[in-house]
Amino acid sequence: MKKVAVIVGSKSDREQMNKALETFDKLGVNYEFRVLSAHRDPEALHEFVASLEPSEYAAVIAGAGMAAALPGCVAAQTLLPVIGVPMKGGALNGVDALYSIVQMPKGVPVGSMAIGSSGAVNAALYAVRMMALTDDEARKKLEEYRESIKTA
Amino acid sequence: MKKVAVIVGSKSDREQMNKALETFDKLGVNYEFRVLSAHRDPEALHEFVASLEPSEYAAVIAGAGMAAALPGCVAAQTLLPVIGVPMKGGALNGVDALYSIVQMPKGVPVGSMAIGSSGAVNAALYAVRMMALTDDEARKKLEEYRESIKTA
Amino acid sequence: MKKVAVIVGSKSDREQMNKALETFDKLGVNYEFRVLSAHRDPEALHEFVASLEPSEYAAVIAGAGMAAALPGCVAAQTLLPVIGVPMKGGALNGVDALYSIVQMPKGVPVGSMAIGSSGAVNAALYAVRMMALTDDEARKKLEEYRESIKTA
Amino acid sequence: MKKVAVIVGSKSDREQMNKALETFDKLGVNYEFRVLSAHRDPEALHEFVASLEPSEYAAVIAGAGMAAALPGCVAAQTLLPVIGVPMKGGALNGVDALYSIVQMPKGVPVGSMAIGSSGAVNAALYAVRMMALTDDEARKKLEEYRESIKTA
Amino acid sequence: MKKVAVIVGSKSDREQMNKALETFDKLGVNYEFRVLSAHRDPEALHEFVASLEPSEYAAVIAGAGMAAALPGCVAAQTLLPVIGVPMKGGALNGVDALYSIVQMPKGVPVGSMAIGSSGAVNAALYAVRMMALTDDEARKKLEEYRESIKTA
Amino acid sequence: MKKVAVIVGSKSDREQMNKALETFDKLGVNYEFRVLSAHRDPEALHEFVASLEPSEYAAVIAGAGMAAALPGCVAAQTLLPVIGVPMKGGALNGVDALYSIVQMPKGVPVGSMAIGSSGAVNAALYAVRMMALTDDEARKKLEEYRESIKTA
Amino acid sequence: MKKVAVIVGSKSDREQMNKALETFDKLGVNYEFRVLSAHRDPEALHEFVASLEPSEYAAVIAGAGMAAALPGCVAAQTLLPVIGVPMKGGALNGVDALYSIVQMPKGVPVGSMAIGSSGAVNAALYAVRMMALTDDEARKKLEEYRESIKTA
Amino acid sequence: MKKVAVIVGSKSDREQMNKALETFDKLGVNYEFRVLSAHRDPEALHEFVASLEPSEYAAVIAGAGMAAALPGCVAAQTLLPVIGVPMKGGALNGVDALYSIVQMPKGVPVGSMAIGSSGAVNAALYAVRMMALTDDEARKKLEEYRESIKTA
Repeated sequence: MKKVAVIVGSKSDREQMNKALETFDKLGVNYEFRVLSAHRDPEALHEFVASLEPSEYAAVIAGAGMAAALPGCVAAQTLLPVIGVPMKGGALNGVDALYSIVQMPKGVPVGSMAIGSSGAVNAALYAVRMMALTDDEARKKLEEYRESIKTA
Repeated sequence: MKKVAVIVGSKSDREQMNKALETFDKLGVNYEFRVLSAHRDPEALHEFVASLEPSEYAAVIAGAGMAAALPGCVAAQTLLPVIGVPMKGGALNGVDALYSIVQMPKGVPVGSMAIGSSGAVNAALYAVRMMALTDDEARKKLEEYRESIKTA
Repeated sequence: MKKVAVIVGSKSDREQMNKALETFDKLGVNYEFRVLSAHRDPEALHEFVASLEPSEYAAVIAGAGMAAALPGCVAAQTLLPVIGVPMKGGALNGVDALYSIVQMPKGVPVGSMAIGSSGAVNAALYAVRMMALTDDEARKKLEEYRESIKTA
Repeated sequence: MKKVAVIVGSKSDREQMNKALETFDKLGVNYEFRVLSAHRDPEALHEFVASLEPSEYAAVIAGAGMAAALPGCVAAQTLLPVIGVPMKGGALNGVDALYSIVQMPKGVPVGSMAIGSSGAVNAALYAVRMMALTDDEARKKLEEYRESIKTA
Repeated sequence: MKKVAVIVGSKSDREQMNKALETFDKLGVNYEFRVLSAHRDPEALHEFVASLEPSEYAAVIAGAGMAAALPGCVAAQTLLPVIGVPMKGGALNGVDALYSIVQMPKGVPVGSMAIGSSGAVNAALYAVRMMALTDDEARKKLEEYRESIKTA
Repeated sequence: MKKVAVIVGSKSDREQMNKALETFDKLGVNYEFRVLSAHRDPEALHEFVASLEPSEYAAVIAGAGMAAALPGCVAAQTLLPVIGVPMKGGALNGVDALYSIVQMPKGVPVGSMAIGSSGAVNAALYAVRMMALTDDEARKKLEEYRESIKTA
Repeated sequence: MKKVAVIVGSKSDREQMNKALETFDKLGVNYEFRVLSAHRDPEALHEFVASLEPSEYAAVIAGAGMAAALPGCVAAQTLLPVIGVPMKGGALNGVDALYSIVQMPKGVPVGSMAIGSSGAVNAALYAVRMMALTDDEARKKLEEYRESIKTA
Repeated sequence: MKKVAVIVGSKSDREQMNKALETFDKLGVNYEFRVLSAHRDPEALHEFVASLEPSEYAAVIAGAGMAAALPGCVAAQTLLPVIGVPMKGGALNGVDALYSIVQMPKGVPVGSMAIGSSGAVNAALYAVRMMALTDDEARKKLEEYRESIKTA
């Protein structure tokens, strides 16, 4: 079973993104978590993204707030599917991050989730949907999960 | 090679979504296109989505405008990854469709693209990124495409 | 006297929608309350909505937050008048729910109320206005209510 | 069969509201159309609204643009259900009219439709849904209409 | 010296509007304060506004939240200058009230202040500017006030 | 009869502000028109505003687009009532100008009109309402005008 | 080494702007801080800005909230580069200040930072970038700073 | 006299950015223009930005539309002052680009100009203001320019 790379742009994004990691834990999916800023340390980000082998990773989840360049920059440096999570917070409460993530110009796609922790949970589930394309166990876990949330 | 299902909510969305179909044609990807409204004909939509076998389809692209329920309704009825494209148009020019697509509650993920034709192109590329996880030919095509747009 | 069906998309919407139920209690109107998600359990929603007989129900109130597909999905499955209540909350505080509810494409109407608990109160009053079209007692109750709030 | 009162706040709103009138014509519903401004001629508006007998009218449709006070003012002067249609246009393209119509304070409900001509069509259909509560012919017409738009 | 009529649409608007009253107290200006809703009690509002003699009143300040019809309705019923104050609060925090007040259609002007208590203070000062056109004492008080806030 | 000073921030604002001038012409009100930018020529603006004698002028209308500092700067330099008109245009179509004009901090009031030409017409009418406080002829003209627009 | 002038429009803006001053302290940059309102005391503002000699000052940082005219007014009175910081707060939480600062008409540039304290920190760093154009020590400090925040 | 580097993210941004180049031509400032996408060709962008010597360049102007990562990515790779220009266009008409450019997290500053061609003109003038800190000729040109636009 492949892993999912999970990156946030700042330590302060950790709490919101934890919801994705908890979802992976619940579903038994492996992930690699990093705090790497596209603005404050582009080289370290580049190095990590360049190291993600398609044989080992199924997707990258990237979460960032405000002028959230991270998901787009990741998508520019890998051909793995990139899932963006706009972080809630700041004066605009995440609508800036949403626009910075979802309004990608043609050629470099990012799949954006909802702002904040709902988006983080769904980012994990979305990555598992991709895995489930060729992994029956992942599919079975998604089916169980879907059943479990019906009355949430 | 698997196919991609492409659904729009109304005939008037066809023109914008054509950019996705043209991208698939350029990359040699097969797709199945339907006009099916979540609001005007939920039964026909349900029937089509229920018929999408994971062995045959890699993803569903769903495009709709205004109160764009289509992508979320599709994601509620399949475990395939669903890619949403908010259609440009109407009094709010697509910001309504964007919010209706991207702000999915936790449990049912949709990966949202940008509003309008840029989003449609990227929806196709995003689907191919998913295919490329286990399809080397798809990966090679993406690499060629990426090379070709560097100076766009 | 007919009943009103009241549906919310998630347990967390209960508190806001309680204002509608309290208004019905105050006016002596019967209702049937359900938590049913259009995204997490579309079959259960469909089943409930399909069971609403026009001889027994006068309207459906549907409240949901974020990408609030619930009211539109209900309106797609019944010909009873559907009253939508956008729930306050999340990063966008309900403007996403408002657009997802009010911007219905032509053919499938939903009458949207204000975001949050004001909308919930008014949803109940709006349902009673419909009942009052053919129910003089309902009309009398509305008149009394109107009198009582003049100095609120 | 009862009639529906249709009011717009200005002559320039006529074109958008025509979609409601055409929908009534198609469904064989009678209506009374007026141009009456809540801001420029509140007395004439008051007089017309006060004249609407519940035995004769099933609903009032009120369309206005910008600071669209009309639907709320009508709802303050009658107990008939009021359906508001925010008119598209002006610098804000109707989002001002939407907020002015949908964000009613508790006590005086208005059911808001989408901005512009989609909203006008749906306003007519919504009024007919109310009529259909006690009018089987109206219900039959709605069923036929719903069938006819499935592939729109 | 003339008086200023100050109206708010709901008891809950009192606290924000108090800033206007305190400003009048500070400047020694007389006012008449009322809670009168354009939606819940249009007749009482009409009666009060109709009673405002130009020989006695210099302006009307009207504050309301959400779909704030009050200032426009007042301006429709008097030829005194009307000053609108959008109340902060609700899911949209006053941007709905702002649009409902400032976006008046041509023919019936309302001068809108800022959202919330800054707007309430300025509404009072604005009324005094109008008085100062023909009242030298008012002018002198404004000059003193202006001096006093230079370093605020 | 006093005059009204009318200032726009740029030659390109002239067309929209003409609606105010035409309204003054229709009502027989004298005005002094200037193109004076708060950003490009603050000295010339200051000089003109400083020259406005309260014995001669009843109000200042100031119209500007984008980061519309003009009305606030005028209000900072005179104690005459200042009426702001946000100009339509630019990427944000006037919502930037609206916020720059209406959101004045406490202490320095500006009465904002609607965005664009509706706002320009109303600015003129609002100035005449101020004049009418002490000028019976102005009041009579307003009454005639109000009568003439009832069916607009 | 030149100094930077730092102005805020109100005492209440002090706390947010402190982040700029702390950043200067950390980098050893001299500054001159003033509270000067463009609306409440334009003369004092003018006097201070006119006194800023290019031989002594490298830039002006101006922070203000709501209808934030301050940065634009400063840029109109000096040829030093002006850095604007929209203050967070009020009903619109700073989006009004952002539009009032960033949407400058052509001819008079202001470089806008993010809303609130992030913007204040960056305003200081941006001023130091300008100094570093001709000051190697400033450049060295920026390099150290950049190194220090890589893992923030 | 130093040069200014001018980068746009796409060929389609050329027309709007031409206003900056024309302004430089008018003022006799040298520039180096490139079309380099942060998303489609990050390596080429990196290479160009890394080549900008502080001894040769005074600033970088970066213009991009939609999820405009370009200015922030440039600011992450150089210590020269970066001036961002949000391009007008797309479904959101540039408000997405504005948020993506101006809402930079602390540590990496970008000075944002207005959306579209006004922003492009001002970007050039802002760069010249930076040059004028140590270049008297640049200062003189700015003074002439300022004089020339007083009556624009």
